[in-house]
Amino acid sequence: MDLTRLPAAWLRDNCGCSLCRDPRNGQKLFHITDLPQELAIGDVRERAGGASFEVEWVPDGHRSVYALEWLTESAPSGDGRSGDGRTEDGKQLWRAAALDGRLPEADWEAYLAEPAERIRVLESVQRLGFALLRGVPCRERQVLAVAETFGYVRETNYGSLFDVRVEADPNNLAFTGAAITPHTDNPYRDPVPTLQLLHCLTNAATGGDSGLVDGFAAAALLRDEDPAAYEVLTRTLVPFRFDDARSALRADRPLIDVDPLGRIREVRFNNRSIGTLRLSAEELDLFYAAYRRFGALLLRDDLRLDFRLAPGDCLIFDNTRLLHARTAFAESGERHLQGCYADLDGLASTLEVLRREQPLDELAALFEGAGAEQYLGEEITQAQHMLQAAALAEAAGAGASLVAAALLHDVGHFHGPVSGADLMASDGTDNRHSHTGAERLARWFGPEVTEPVRLHVAAKRYLCAVEPDYFGKLSEASVHTLRVQGGPMSSAEVRAFEDEDFGADAVRLRRWDEAAKRVDARTPDFAHFRPLLAGLLR
Amino acid sequence: MDLTRLPAAWLRDNCGCSLCRDPRNGQKLFHITDLPQELAIGDVRERAGGASFEVEWVPDGHRSVYALEWLTESAPSGDGRSGDGRTEDGKQLWRAAALDGRLPEADWEAYLAEPAERIRVLESVQRLGFALLRGVPCRERQVLAVAETFGYVRETNYGSLFDVRVEADPNNLAFTGAAITPHTDNPYRDPVPTLQLLHCLTNAATGGDSGLVDGFAAAALLRDEDPAAYEVLTRTLVPFRFDDARSALRADRPLIDVDPLGRIREVRFNNRSIGTLRLSAEELDLFYAAYRRFGALLLRDDLRLDFRLAPGDCLIFDNTRLLHARTAFAESGERHLQGCYADLDGLASTLEVLRREQPLDELAALFEGAGAEQYLGEEITQAQHMLQAAALAEAAGAGASLVAAALLHDVGHFHGPVSGADLMASDGTDNRHSHTGAERLARWFGPEVTEPVRLHVAAKRYLCAVEPDYFGKLSEASVHTLRVQGGPMSSAEVRAFEDEDFGADAVRLRRWDEAAKRVDARTPDFAHFRPLLAGLLR
Repeated sequence: MDLTRLPAAWLRDNCGCSLCRDPRNGQKLFHITDLPQELAIGDVRERAGGASFEVEWVPDGHRSVYALEWLTESAPSGDGRSGDGRTEDGKQLWRAAALDGRLPEADWEAYLAEPAERIRVLESVQRLGFALLRGVPCRERQVLAVAETFGYVRETNYGSLFDVRVEADPNNLAFTGAAITPHTDNPYRDPVPTLQLLHCLTNAATGGDSGLVDGFAAAALLRDEDPAAYEVLTRTLVPFRFDDARSALRADRPLIDVDPLGRIREVRFNNRSIGTLRLSAEELDLFYAAYRRFGALLLRDDLRLDFRLAPGDCLIFDNTRLLHARTAFAESGERHLQGCYADLDGLASTLEVLRREQPLDELAALFEGAGAEQYLGEEITQAQHMLQAAALAEAAGAGASLVAAALLHDVGHFHGPVSGADLMASDGTDNRHSHTGAERLARWFGPEVTEPVRLHVAAKRYLCAVEPDYFGKLSEASVHTLRVQGGPMSSAEVRAFEDEDFGADAVRLRRWDEAAKRVDARTPDFAHFRPLLAGLLR
Repeated sequence: MDLTRLPAAWLRDNCGCSLCRDPRNGQKLFHITDLPQELAIGDVRERAGGASFEVEWVPDGHRSVYALEWLTESAPSGDGRSGDGRTEDGKQLWRAAALDGRLPEADWEAYLAEPAERIRVLESVQRLGFALLRGVPCRERQVLAVAETFGYVRETNYGSLFDVRVEADPNNLAFTGAAITPHTDNPYRDPVPTLQLLHCLTNAATGGDSGLVDGFAAAALLRDEDPAAYEVLTRTLVPFRFDDARSALRADRPLIDVDPLGRIREVRFNNRSIGTLRLSAEELDLFYAAYRRFGALLLRDDLRLDFRLAPGDCLIFDNTRLLHARTAFAESGERHLQGCYADLDGLASTLEVLRREQPLDELAALFEGAGAEQYLGEEITQAQHMLQAAALAEAAGAGASLVAAALLHDVGHFHGPVSGADLMASDGTDNRHSHTGAERLARWFGPEVTEPVRLHVAAKRYLCAVEPDYFGKLSEASVHTLRVQGGPMSSAEVRAFEDEDFGADAVRLRRWDEAAKRVDARTPDFAHFRPLLAGLLR
């Protein structure tokens, strides 16, 4: 890879050294103007056998190291515009027919219990714009608890929570029995609440069915069918207004908002709250024709998904994209929803953290499952052994990566039941469990975690070679396995081991490994180490 | 005025009749597609002597009435683009030098006590981007109470409230003693919190001074000095990121965001949290040159306002516009701010309601001041008399406008002390107080309130003419004034009165007026009627 052809300021801005980024939080420590005006890439040297490159900068002599993997992933190109997933590019646009009656839904208990289920629900809100939770307890204020599973409630003039039911003196048509055509909520707010939740407590009224329309799909359709109308709606600022005794809200925003690359990013549509546009007569004619066309499109049957909320259902939807509607209902019938607002950024963050923590969930499952097996010939389980090793590392003041390596050093055993007898049957030097463990962990952790794991069997052979009394400290089972692992190292092997970047860490790990076989030791559980592991995930 | 030349759909969309708008909340009751496809303006008739126009629509025969005043104000024109005040158009851009050391500040107690002071502070946040409250109690969590005076706290990953002080394991450089260059907060959130509050509890450290830069002014300067760089920054999506153990936030937004008309609308600048841009090499070179140029501009001394927060100071600023900074401070010194986020839309609404309620504040002051004077020759005060009239109207189930008219029917007296002797000295038919009262109220209320007030003296003369026993019900003082008001109406006057739109209302008001002279009556106070009045303000 020829680094000298990369944009210098860009490359330097991505330097990850501890002078450039705070190791505690990854934030940049320099201002862009701190970089030399005539910044240039000087010497470039391969490191770690081509796995990374070191750049020496001209004129300030700063040094940066870039992993080949990062360089390959991030190399400048014209097509890396997928962005933060908030525009049409990040979505699956839909018409009701295409969903074929299948609502993206999940059971509340499963959603709470299983991270994979939470991921599925939140991904659905991101991708389709909505999801439906079933079996949410029909308790007052429960909708707030639902919002708090993924984000922060956004308080508005309607309160933290609002009741959708017939009111005696409604400040909004939502609080009557009237039919409400597809719309987005709070268009007169800026920032508009980007998520809405509606939790059904009672729905015994005749009528009062729900509808959803994908506003992005409708806007894209308008762009296809009438590009000029679409363009008018992206550039006309519409004054949305809401006034009551305690509020006077106003936001001037287009019905279809696009990002700087022209991608659909936000739809705002609410016939009830459009105020008086102040434009030229010609512009008004163009706007009203386009508004009418878009309005008609949003009412098309094939776009609208109809369903009925039952008590215990909680609908979560993207208020910058999906329009919601309801049919009229008899004001005498009982229908009571509670709603609240929240924001997409918090949801996306929760989803990303859940995804990031999936490895930890997998590891936790291993500790509970295969880890409960007996540790090779010892009186403790594999999980107890590894937790003891991690506790010893922690007590010794080891860095996070080495504590993690100690905790995970035997995950290679977990591919299935591994007994001493199996090992005996294998041939020659058997480092299998250390190597397969390291490989497995390399999907999630860097070499500072995986290398001590990979080398922890070699470290036993090393120690037996360089410390004459070390062999005497081995447990019976460990003596047993040393033989199949190749016995003490030769002097050539010792020299090679001492050249390893993480050889010394592997030796420290090894000593804890030997000591972590006490039948009576009390250790923290896996959950104790989760935050530490989370901080080390790639 | 030739209404037939107005854009038909626009005019119809602004129909204010009770079929088109819910009288309770002003929301539109029709969908744009409910209007006839071939909508046209049919007959146009002047009403109320040219004060309004009635339109009969073709083909559906719907009728709409538009006030001349509204038509004049709202008539289509190409220059009504001032909008919601969120772009550079609605702001006063500044450089530090121009502020001449004068911070827009106010005392906390005065801010709480005086609506005019609150208006001044909130206007300053809107116009200049910030305001400083002094003497805010140095209590933990007080910053939340400040935010709640004008809006809603926006909870984020930092909590409802965050402590800005040195932390042992900071997830953000803000929580160290490091210098922080001008930046906006939470650029990795979308929607970004649009307001920030910082409340100083302790500032005994050496260093730790504050700085503010008007990002809109800086962006406008860049547009002047280097239009190409400005343009690059408005169209390049920058990936802002924040990651810690519990968050993984990302927003791709430009450093300078413009509205569809190209006006500066939002500045996002934070060197600490810009991730890896994925663009072509050429685009990266252009972006980094422009970013550097903007960054240098934001560091210019003449732009930056420096000051020091003292305990009890609470800074409120627009996080979509102002960049804030601080100098380094000794981590050993004590410096503790508490901050929170909120949003501009709530602040703007509060400001608008305060402005709207200014008339009510003025009226309340009248009730307390001049209203405490004795009512013409009766044993009660003018305020008691009017409160009694309003209470009688309310008890009779009168509509809000007529209750208001009853409450305010004698404000014409309040121009100064008005005694029976003064009235006696005036000539001929004296309707002065009813007419001046109506005129005064017309700034704030529509004819449904002002007309019954204007006619309430005429109504006495009317009743004395048409109800032979009415004269006998008048109080001594009222008999006294009837004479100077012209005595009972002639039959021509009676016919003219009966043609008045609000004659019947004036008659009802008059009867309550006569009865509202009891010395022992208990009535609600003015505050009771405020919400009703607020709902009637124009």
